[in-house]
Amino acid sequence: MDENQEELEAHFLQLKSELQKNDLQDFREHFLEMHIYDQGQFYQSLDGEERQLVYSYMSPKELADMFDVIEEDDEHVEEYLSEMRPRYAADMLSEMYTDNAVDIFNELDKKQVAKYLSLMEPEHANEIRELLHYEDDTAGSIMTTEFVSIVANQTVRSAMYVLKKEAQIAETIYYTYVVNTENQLVGVISLRDLIINDDDTMVSEVMSERVISVHVGDDQEDVAQMFRDYDFLALPVTDYEDHLLGIVTVDDIIDVIDDEAASDYSGLAGVNVEEVDENPIKSASRRLPWLITLLFLGMTTASLINHYEALVSKASILAVFISLITGTAGNAGTQSLAVAVRRIAMSDDKDSGFGRLIIGEILTGLVTGLVTGATIFIIVGIWKHNFVLGFVIGTAMVAAITVANLAGSLIPMVMEKLGFDPAVASGPFITTLSDLTSVLIYFNIASLFMEHFIGS
Amino acid sequence: MDENQEELEAHFLQLKSELQKNDLQDFREHFLEMHIYDQGQFYQSLDGEERQLVYSYMSPKELADMFDVIEEDDEHVEEYLSEMRPRYAADMLSEMYTDNAVDIFNELDKKQVAKYLSLMEPEHANEIRELLHYEDDTAGSIMTTEFVSIVANQTVRSAMYVLKKEAQIAETIYYTYVVNTENQLVGVISLRDLIINDDDTMVSEVMSERVISVHVGDDQEDVAQMFRDYDFLALPVTDYEDHLLGIVTVDDIIDVIDDEAASDYSGLAGVNVEEVDENPIKSASRRLPWLITLLFLGMTTASLINHYEALVSKASILAVFISLITGTAGNAGTQSLAVAVRRIAMSDDKDSGFGRLIIGEILTGLVTGLVTGATIFIIVGIWKHNFVLGFVIGTAMVAAITVANLAGSLIPMVMEKLGFDPAVASGPFITTLSDLTSVLIYFNIASLFMEHFIGS
Repeated sequence: MDENQEELEAHFLQLKSELQKNDLQDFREHFLEMHIYDQGQFYQSLDGEERQLVYSYMSPKELADMFDVIEEDDEHVEEYLSEMRPRYAADMLSEMYTDNAVDIFNELDKKQVAKYLSLMEPEHANEIRELLHYEDDTAGSIMTTEFVSIVANQTVRSAMYVLKKEAQIAETIYYTYVVNTENQLVGVISLRDLIINDDDTMVSEVMSERVISVHVGDDQEDVAQMFRDYDFLALPVTDYEDHLLGIVTVDDIIDVIDDEAASDYSGLAGVNVEEVDENPIKSASRRLPWLITLLFLGMTTASLINHYEALVSKASILAVFISLITGTAGNAGTQSLAVAVRRIAMSDDKDSGFGRLIIGEILTGLVTGLVTGATIFIIVGIWKHNFVLGFVIGTAMVAAITVANLAGSLIPMVMEKLGFDPAVASGPFITTLSDLTSVLIYFNIASLFMEHFIGS
Repeated sequence: MDENQEELEAHFLQLKSELQKNDLQDFREHFLEMHIYDQGQFYQSLDGEERQLVYSYMSPKELADMFDVIEEDDEHVEEYLSEMRPRYAADMLSEMYTDNAVDIFNELDKKQVAKYLSLMEPEHANEIRELLHYEDDTAGSIMTTEFVSIVANQTVRSAMYVLKKEAQIAETIYYTYVVNTENQLVGVISLRDLIINDDDTMVSEVMSERVISVHVGDDQEDVAQMFRDYDFLALPVTDYEDHLLGIVTVDDIIDVIDDEAASDYSGLAGVNVEEVDENPIKSASRRLPWLITLLFLGMTTASLINHYEALVSKASILAVFISLITGTAGNAGTQSLAVAVRRIAMSDDKDSGFGRLIIGEILTGLVTGLVTGATIFIIVGIWKHNFVLGFVIGTAMVAAITVANLAGSLIPMVMEKLGFDPAVASGPFITTLSDLTSVLIYFNIASLFMEHFIGS
């Protein structure tokens, strides 16, 4: 890939000089021969003045293909739009795949949305208006309306004819959807099947009638799961009466999978890992809300220990093991949390198996607790020549780990039941909460055995 | 999707009864009309005796399509193979896409690999043998050899003719790769372009000569990144002299993305989240190695506190804030770790920007530390009517958070440099390590100011 990269950079240099020399013909030719992603990379490397030249050299349609690719990642899209003439921008938005255009519209303020929509063909503007209504994270919000649909009673030859005509506009031509006169989805045929079948065969004979489809309100995560299971390149989206509304394509699903993974990962860490700020102040200001919230939760733990200060001043040895117990229970709770969040995300039926998972985590907590507790009992007993103290630490460890495992699995599930993202129950939150319960358990057990381990 | 599910279950029941009634004709018809993923779901729901009936009703080729889908997730594939006659199993493996067959071979022991390879056509066995040589997690290890390649000096019509012939075997026909007489990759043409161009056009005129390809030894994560960037459905894989060896398809890339996400997530939690054990003992035995290792690291912290026991017994108030300082620093370290791991994974050039990231994290640590430290200074000062104590806790907080941020970003980077997966530096490891440094910082600062805050 390194050669590709070098070649590409040389190409970029050449393009830039053609742009500055007003070498319209060569620039257009060399620009268009690049992959649209590379066109995007080039465009993004330009300054405002150079971009103005691009707008005068390239048609809105030519730029639309490139914007289909860059809209996902680029926060400057709004700026790019504002520097184009409004008409040019509206034409370009019209030429983009509707799902990508809708992504851009979702970032704009209402005034701009109205402006661009008013400059677009009414039919197209309506299509976009409709898509803008779908809730975030549903199949409707990621689908596109540029698909190919045909009726069943025609031959493969005539279907291919339709396909050739639509190939320029459709986001994918590799599946053709078959509908009845009411636009209800009744079948699907892949381009592969169209090609290997005889031209005179009827579409109804070769199409698959068991079409797998999703509803427009389905969660995008569930849609992603169907792509994983069935290895599709696209899936049709219908309303609740089977009318075909759009398709979701695999490239959008990859974005969904990436976003979900980043959000789970961010949740576990208690920080948005997609922060791109290089500026430490901005970066800190994103992380501080969690840290300060948890600091106050941590203060509860501190005041709990404060409550037991008399105990500690009599037996300062107790202070030695506070961080060991809270730390180990926190580690166990984090493991438990991660397993639970993952299992909730992967389970098809979200209502079943919750009880079993929780009992499983409590038992796992007991087993890990017992092993860890026994280990620390022996270590402390030998180290301090005090097996009563060892017993106190060990018992506290068993209880603290079990409770941490319960919290780690129960909290994300309750959040899921309440309709929140279970990944929001972050690792730092679980460890800070488990600090509190661990200290409570530890000092209560220590109080009980106080006489014995101090005496020995 | 719920209707789909019910319909499917009814279909499964019907199939089972046909199977048990030896209703060969109906079973075959109804089995084959299902999507191969659903076939797999049905097959996996059968017991050993019923599976034997399936092997006698279906040809190895028919079963191969289904195995292409189930091999990813099913740990019982080895068992399934062993219950088939060896010849049948070998035929089925031959009919599978080579990348999937190779995945299965990778799970088998050497004796079985040799057995099945000896029963396969020599040519096919050699192909698989070659693919088995590629290192894990490289483009070579996930590519398939069932692609369509043609030479440039022919018409679109004759290219389509080749395509139709290969459509039954090839994993994707949506890209056709153009090679020269030395089998070096010189171009690519999508099926879309073949369809919209005139039949008499020469392939060389319509193919794209800027083919984007990967090398056989490239990391699969980098390959996944190219799919994300370019929205490809497949990418060609070449050796270092541009000879076309295979293709990677988007469905395999989704698996790569899922695996990488699960491994990052597991790393952060210090547990393999893909554990599927329902058995608490097994589940505990997977988590204990980390917990016990960290317990010993935690013992270092305990013995450090033990070293300061005299200090604590003089000022037991110090014990109150141990968990607050270690906890907050641990939270900050986890945030820092997650940001660093993510940034390492996303950066194209792994060598640059390390210094900048680390300095950034230290500065972010300082800012978050200062804000958190100031907050706790005020809280403790007011709560305990002791601003010297507040100053000690606050200062310790600033230092502990800064060090935790440094550790959280530095450790994954060093691991990356040393060639380990940076995600192995797990969250629990960072928090446990940061417990140690935090306690060290805390007691040293406390010792310095001992006289002052005890007196006041």
